[in-house]
Amino acid sequence: MTEHNTEIQPDNLEQLSLQLIEAQYALKNTKAKKNAKSVLILVNGIELAGKGEAVKQLREWVDPRYLRVKADPPNLIDAQTPFWQPYTRHIPAEGQMMVWFGNWYSDLLATSLHVSKPFDDTTFNTYVDQMKTFEQDLKNNHVDVIKVWFDLSWKSLQKRLDKMDASEQRWHKLHGLDWRNKKQYDNLQKLRNRFTEDWYIIDCEDEDKRDQSFAQHILKHLDHLPNHPVKVRSKWQQAPIPEALIQPDDQALDKDQYKTELKKLTKKVADALRTQGRKTVIVFEGMDAAGKGGAIKRIVKKLDPREYGIYNISAPEKYELARPYLWRFWSKLLDEESISIFDRSWYGRVLVERIEGFATDVEWKRAYDEINRFEKDLVDTQTTVVKFWLAISKDEQEQRFKAREVTPHKRFKITEEDWRNRRRWDDYLHAAADMLQRTDTEYAPWYVIATNDKYSARIQILNALLKQLKVD
Amino acid sequence: MTEHNTEIQPDNLEQLSLQLIEAQYALKNTKAKKNAKSVLILVNGIELAGKGEAVKQLREWVDPRYLRVKADPPNLIDAQTPFWQPYTRHIPAEGQMMVWFGNWYSDLLATSLHVSKPFDDTTFNTYVDQMKTFEQDLKNNHVDVIKVWFDLSWKSLQKRLDKMDASEQRWHKLHGLDWRNKKQYDNLQKLRNRFTEDWYIIDCEDEDKRDQSFAQHILKHLDHLPNHPVKVRSKWQQAPIPEALIQPDDQALDKDQYKTELKKLTKKVADALRTQGRKTVIVFEGMDAAGKGGAIKRIVKKLDPREYGIYNISAPEKYELARPYLWRFWSKLLDEESISIFDRSWYGRVLVERIEGFATDVEWKRAYDEINRFEKDLVDTQTTVVKFWLAISKDEQEQRFKAREVTPHKRFKITEEDWRNRRRWDDYLHAAADMLQRTDTEYAPWYVIATNDKYSARIQILNALLKQLKVD
Repeated sequence: MTEHNTEIQPDNLEQLSLQLIEAQYALKNTKAKKNAKSVLILVNGIELAGKGEAVKQLREWVDPRYLRVKADPPNLIDAQTPFWQPYTRHIPAEGQMMVWFGNWYSDLLATSLHVSKPFDDTTFNTYVDQMKTFEQDLKNNHVDVIKVWFDLSWKSLQKRLDKMDASEQRWHKLHGLDWRNKKQYDNLQKLRNRFTEDWYIIDCEDEDKRDQSFAQHILKHLDHLPNHPVKVRSKWQQAPIPEALIQPDDQALDKDQYKTELKKLTKKVADALRTQGRKTVIVFEGMDAAGKGGAIKRIVKKLDPREYGIYNISAPEKYELARPYLWRFWSKLLDEESISIFDRSWYGRVLVERIEGFATDVEWKRAYDEINRFEKDLVDTQTTVVKFWLAISKDEQEQRFKAREVTPHKRFKITEEDWRNRRRWDDYLHAAADMLQRTDTEYAPWYVIATNDKYSARIQILNALLKQLKVD
Repeated sequence: MTEHNTEIQPDNLEQLSLQLIEAQYALKNTKAKKNAKSVLILVNGIELAGKGEAVKQLREWVDPRYLRVKADPPNLIDAQTPFWQPYTRHIPAEGQMMVWFGNWYSDLLATSLHVSKPFDDTTFNTYVDQMKTFEQDLKNNHVDVIKVWFDLSWKSLQKRLDKMDASEQRWHKLHGLDWRNKKQYDNLQKLRNRFTEDWYIIDCEDEDKRDQSFAQHILKHLDHLPNHPVKVRSKWQQAPIPEALIQPDDQALDKDQYKTELKKLTKKVADALRTQGRKTVIVFEGMDAAGKGGAIKRIVKKLDPREYGIYNISAPEKYELARPYLWRFWSKLLDEESISIFDRSWYGRVLVERIEGFATDVEWKRAYDEINRFEKDLVDTQTTVVKFWLAISKDEQEQRFKAREVTPHKRFKITEEDWRNRRRWDDYLHAAADMLQRTDTEYAPWYVIATNDKYSARIQILNALLKQLKVD
């Protein structure tokens, strides 16, 4: 969507600046409000086209305190890291506006042009699709994405290179491409044409026009930030509640047999986790007192505490609420532990947040697909994802609650909130049924474990884990 | 302070667990309260002594949801990074308790034992001193630090190595030292004896005693968390207010001369920043409307926005308040930009926080030394620190405030808060005087700039910057 804008007269530039500042403050003031938004501006283009100058000019027209600029050298895309991972920590919070020079498209181009064996067409296109989908997920979660390509002809590029002085040359060399190489230039243009179809493309021959065109595009965008969607388009089909959730198997395991099995399996699990050569993410969901803590204890039994991290997920904090709901999990997965165990997880979006109304209908109904994509990206980048739903009967839960209340060192585990959740038992069953139906994928399956008998439950969990780790 | 504890009977273990859980919840409940605390447990020792097992046992006795464990492979200490930098992001927030296996002492030992040219005694001791001082700063800022050394004799270590199976060996190999090498063992013991004087040392021959001794030490500590100090020990001596702050020089610079100088200097500054081979941190403080924004604009004039980051510091958010006040600056300095410009800074501690009473007397009076140490650590690790106080007269400020109110695109810059701050003009002058006197160090000096004349101010700032960057 190339646009040839008419030049603005100097006396109108002050007007443009004022409008930008007003739009910026309007954005800033959405913070913590119902229609809160943040804006992410992805900036890419030909070297010396003037991305830097245009952003600098924008920064002079707006209130610079509320326009963050971020630039990193490109990360080469590899098979171990989701392309979004280097960036998620810096996703702007509600009310913020941010320009990103180094972004996933720079990475894609750098990887395509630098590696000895470049991406084939299919791989390249797959990445482009994934990036667009990721941006759509950001948009749905209130991070608006603007993409701008600064273009420059081969001839003008060469002319500008001729005119550069030494200190500038040093700086531009940092970007690592040989801009004197016509073949590389053509190749870059060919590649970027595969993804810039829906970008705003600025012809950078004229510097004033360039800066104004960029600023006006941002302004137009800020003035028309999309509303948060409120209508669910597709018809909602409630999943039937599986019998295994309502009446979990009660079969008890003999204590001696349990002990023998446990010893063998904990050892096997530790070996498997250490030797599989992938990271592992283990998710526990289930009703309160279903035995998540006890199960986690057994998984890590033969591991050293330095080998794993346990994340106990409760209500998000304010600064976490100012970002997409997956944000606080993205950042946890940046930690160095190769085994991450989640005692509750991102599934809170379709469980407690759905039930308590913290997420709107649109939001939680969309979350199943978002979560599936998130997990797929993990699995595709050397991470094994295993998910457990611990199923307990309503009677057994009551007994455990009461036992907790009279056991001194378990008393802390039971609060009024647990009793309150219990009163919404059926809501949780419905939500769990929907979740199991919609997020039980081939690459990240759910294991529903009957936990009325703790011994049997733990053995089942360890066996399921071994199965998912591809160990018999 | 080695302690030979008496063994606890099994029926008392439940009691120990209960006491630990109670202490843990008491800590947790200090969150956001007046006496809020967090606890950081540094764990080091001989391999196979059983640090991991002791922490695992502790985790079984406490509520594991509120005990985080963190372990990283050692970072070799180098001349580019303050030793605390890899850790600050993870400093526990108020109410949290955290065990750190990989910590600055592991780094010190690893660096001493691994590098081809090990630290000489003086360097080693200097690091130890710096680490202790840093810990004292953490403690003063409500992060309690517990240090535990798990010790094991050479003979027992060899016996345990003999008994290990393959999978465990793989794991322990990760730590990189050769535990079969008697000389290395002796060397390690010699080195650690130089810093473990004030540590809790656990003799790990007996495993049960080890775990109980560790847990009891933590419990004792949790039960006696020090109160936040409220008394200032030394007498406070108010600094005289320098004339330059009260009546800044008014000398005006001719516009043409300004333009010529500016062009030359902005270019020179950009060159110097790029070529000096160090990171640069530039701090701006001063009364409102003194021209911080305009000065920053000129510093970055010839830079590309990708080369620098501007941080506009306003009131800290809730999650930032839950950590030491320097925390939010530590994390900003982790960003990749090699030039960081702070529009207001950590000096807020001794300016606005002092004046508005957000920091107690003890806190802001202690902050001068803390800040000096922080900046010293930066300067010692390849960062140039330049600090500007922009001095404006009270009359000139009033004129600028009024001009802002009638200029559409500057209207946003003036708020009721600015007028409120103005009413505390003298308080700010006193605070600035104290700050200048106490933090004007040889390695990170203050430049007081008269800003009644904007042109002259900007030229002075650029020249001062060049001076500090050691360019004539």
